[in-house]
Amino acid sequence: MVKISIIGAGSIAWSASLIKDICLTKSLWGSTISLMDIDRERLKVIYGLAKRYSTEVKADLKFEKTMNRKKALENADFVFNTVLAGGHNNYEIQRKVAEKNGYYRGIDSVDYNMVSDYYTIGGYNQLKLFMDIARDMEDICPEAWLFQTANPVFEGCTLLTRETKLKVIGLCHGHIGYKTVAKRLGLNLKEVEVQSIGFNHCIWMTSFLYEGEDAYPLLDDWIKTKADIFWKNWNPEYYDVEMSPAAVDMYKRFSLFPVGDTARSGGWKYHTNLETKKRWYGPLGGFDSEIGWARYLRDLRKQMDKMLKVYNNPSTPVKSIFPPVKSGEQHVPIVDATVNDKDRMFQLNIPNKGAIDSIPNNVVVEVPAIVNRRGVERIHVGRLPKLLMLHVIIPRMLRMEWALEAFLEGGKDLLFEWLLNDPRTRSLEQAEALIKDILTLPFNKEMAKHYK
Amino acid sequence: MVKISIIGAGSIAWSASLIKDICLTKSLWGSTISLMDIDRERLKVIYGLAKRYSTEVKADLKFEKTMNRKKALENADFVFNTVLAGGHNNYEIQRKVAEKNGYYRGIDSVDYNMVSDYYTIGGYNQLKLFMDIARDMEDICPEAWLFQTANPVFEGCTLLTRETKLKVIGLCHGHIGYKTVAKRLGLNLKEVEVQSIGFNHCIWMTSFLYEGEDAYPLLDDWIKTKADIFWKNWNPEYYDVEMSPAAVDMYKRFSLFPVGDTARSGGWKYHTNLETKKRWYGPLGGFDSEIGWARYLRDLRKQMDKMLKVYNNPSTPVKSIFPPVKSGEQHVPIVDATVNDKDRMFQLNIPNKGAIDSIPNNVVVEVPAIVNRRGVERIHVGRLPKLLMLHVIIPRMLRMEWALEAFLEGGKDLLFEWLLNDPRTRSLEQAEALIKDILTLPFNKEMAKHYK
Repeated sequence: MVKISIIGAGSIAWSASLIKDICLTKSLWGSTISLMDIDRERLKVIYGLAKRYSTEVKADLKFEKTMNRKKALENADFVFNTVLAGGHNNYEIQRKVAEKNGYYRGIDSVDYNMVSDYYTIGGYNQLKLFMDIARDMEDICPEAWLFQTANPVFEGCTLLTRETKLKVIGLCHGHIGYKTVAKRLGLNLKEVEVQSIGFNHCIWMTSFLYEGEDAYPLLDDWIKTKADIFWKNWNPEYYDVEMSPAAVDMYKRFSLFPVGDTARSGGWKYHTNLETKKRWYGPLGGFDSEIGWARYLRDLRKQMDKMLKVYNNPSTPVKSIFPPVKSGEQHVPIVDATVNDKDRMFQLNIPNKGAIDSIPNNVVVEVPAIVNRRGVERIHVGRLPKLLMLHVIIPRMLRMEWALEAFLEGGKDLLFEWLLNDPRTRSLEQAEALIKDILTLPFNKEMAKHYK
Repeated sequence: MVKISIIGAGSIAWSASLIKDICLTKSLWGSTISLMDIDRERLKVIYGLAKRYSTEVKADLKFEKTMNRKKALENADFVFNTVLAGGHNNYEIQRKVAEKNGYYRGIDSVDYNMVSDYYTIGGYNQLKLFMDIARDMEDICPEAWLFQTANPVFEGCTLLTRETKLKVIGLCHGHIGYKTVAKRLGLNLKEVEVQSIGFNHCIWMTSFLYEGEDAYPLLDDWIKTKADIFWKNWNPEYYDVEMSPAAVDMYKRFSLFPVGDTARSGGWKYHTNLETKKRWYGPLGGFDSEIGWARYLRDLRKQMDKMLKVYNNPSTPVKSIFPPVKSGEQHVPIVDATVNDKDRMFQLNIPNKGAIDSIPNNVVVEVPAIVNRRGVERIHVGRLPKLLMLHVIIPRMLRMEWALEAFLEGGKDLLFEWLLNDPRTRSLEQAEALIKDILTLPFNKEMAKHYK
């Protein structure tokens, strides 16, 4: 069978889902899973859990663990990149430095992408790591597929597909947010068919069918008759971003409904401060407020503690925390489709090449496409409304280009040009102070050289 | 010969230059000049001055005056559009309303175009008037050339070339700003050759030759050894925008020198307040500060008074205020080139159609092109540097598209989307109050209907 290498396997929540999916996919049994991370402890934990889980569900798989990336890539057929350079810890330190300089929620919170662990301009280390992994792959396993799961998916995949010859697919689970919409409308999920297109974290429902008929009127009806009640009784335990006032407002502005993480973004209108975020995203202020994000990070730690507890207690079945049901992530089904030549439709981040009208070929878009043994087959999904193009898609694309230009060319001026366009920048001195503070962070030494 | 119609001939300074040029171009004698304006008094003055001047220089031309636009267009071969709907007066009222709401220098001062009588988003009346004139031309003189001189040249020409079948050329004199640069460097103008390309008010010197050799090193030398002295001894009587610290800073940022009005713009970095403007544009704060612009308007009035005085004193030769030397404007030489089939190079605003790389065909660019009896012949002028494309050209183009979309589609939301992207917008309430105030101005009744 095949060899799948998970780079950054220490992000345990993530790799646990992927390992579970492989274990539950009989048609991939006989394969080897290589777990790679630079964190010895976490690697030990995920390796131990993976082996136990595999035994519990009687899967026939071989597991390896290594701290050596090159070794993990040897003979790899599929590489899943899930790394976050420096982890959440560094991200939060960098955010704090930015907030001290007047940049609420950090410099990487930008128009049309406010996702709180998504690097754009501040992510030199992350993009550098993406490129390093890709260069290793070009040397060691040039024919392997690279499934880019780590953010920034839009910037990263555009960079990797432009700068390398690898087969790159960007994967995100945001598009399944349509299920939450369908659930709120009380629809039977099996009868719902949705097409969402755009960029990662910026996808828009171009088609929404229920039992074969346009379901947008059902959505309009919910907004008219039920939205206010729903928002008034907002359960403070839930983010509910998919049907938030922000999502509905974005729909009103651009005439297509935003799907999944798209509603978390949508420009400064919804994000200038906590009060504004609460108005648009409910009591938590959404995923990306200081409240919502702290809760998300706390939940990640809780999950990690739960897994550690099971790891430390060999008599507890791993199944007890990972019930043997597939995760819904696309990675393993895509491997299955290519290896076993099953034609299947997935939601992929791939170079546009004509899929969406009026977007350059070398910009990565998020669209449905078919995968089989021959690779990826694009569908021409047509155009997005002009207003959406002018006020969301092109500005978002421009920010991606600014980020890539800064990453590829270096020089402090490029950071500065970016910040000149940030609505939080009130003076040149403020932008200069921020750049200085970020570049003197100990983990940004290499970044500082690049932007000197 | 031909009939030339000047629409908005009451903008006397402008039409006086054009009339002078026609009088001094023998190869166009025998032609008819139709002066049209809705201001009876001003029309009388320009008509009287034109006739006297023509007699003084012994030109053989026929003059007509009319307040009826359709009549002016009858049998026209060339139409010069120099109108400013509502004049400077309305512009200044609208600016005041915007400033009251926190929008320093008015809503039409936007990134990459700060020219103070250049409408972008606030110019519904102006663009509407352009379209009305063009529709009349389609009915009455569909084969005539339209020389669009009134601002906004970029937005207006793109609109007109997309929405009508007329032959449209946008004309501006900003590109001759290179002469000021050459003068400062002490160069013999006859040996200077320059190519500047981009959009109107946003052109960049892609080639600068002196005696056939690259003259950029001379410019670099001036910046290094003479700029500081020049700026320290800035004559407060002069704007000197062409060689201002802003111009030099833009050159450093984007590696091409900005030409003419381009240096007046360049983003909020140079324009956030009067103090900032003074830092970058000298003691007057440039053309577009409250000081510089008030002075410009005062000078316009002075010039007008001078002309009125001559008008009221038939014994004073008009030549005394308009010495018989050609103005340097391109209008009349272009007429001459098409009528008398003289191949000549001009600086034109025309649909790109491949002239500059990576700009859509249906966006109007400012480039050198050849004009002769067959019309306009484009030259492929190549590409602009990537950084300039990403941080100036594309954002400026996007603002043009926002303005046209708002003008064509209407609805308050489109004004609002625009203002969401304005760095001066601090809250949604501020933007809403501004829109309300502007749309209740008595001269914006039609605009209010459009954006209701």
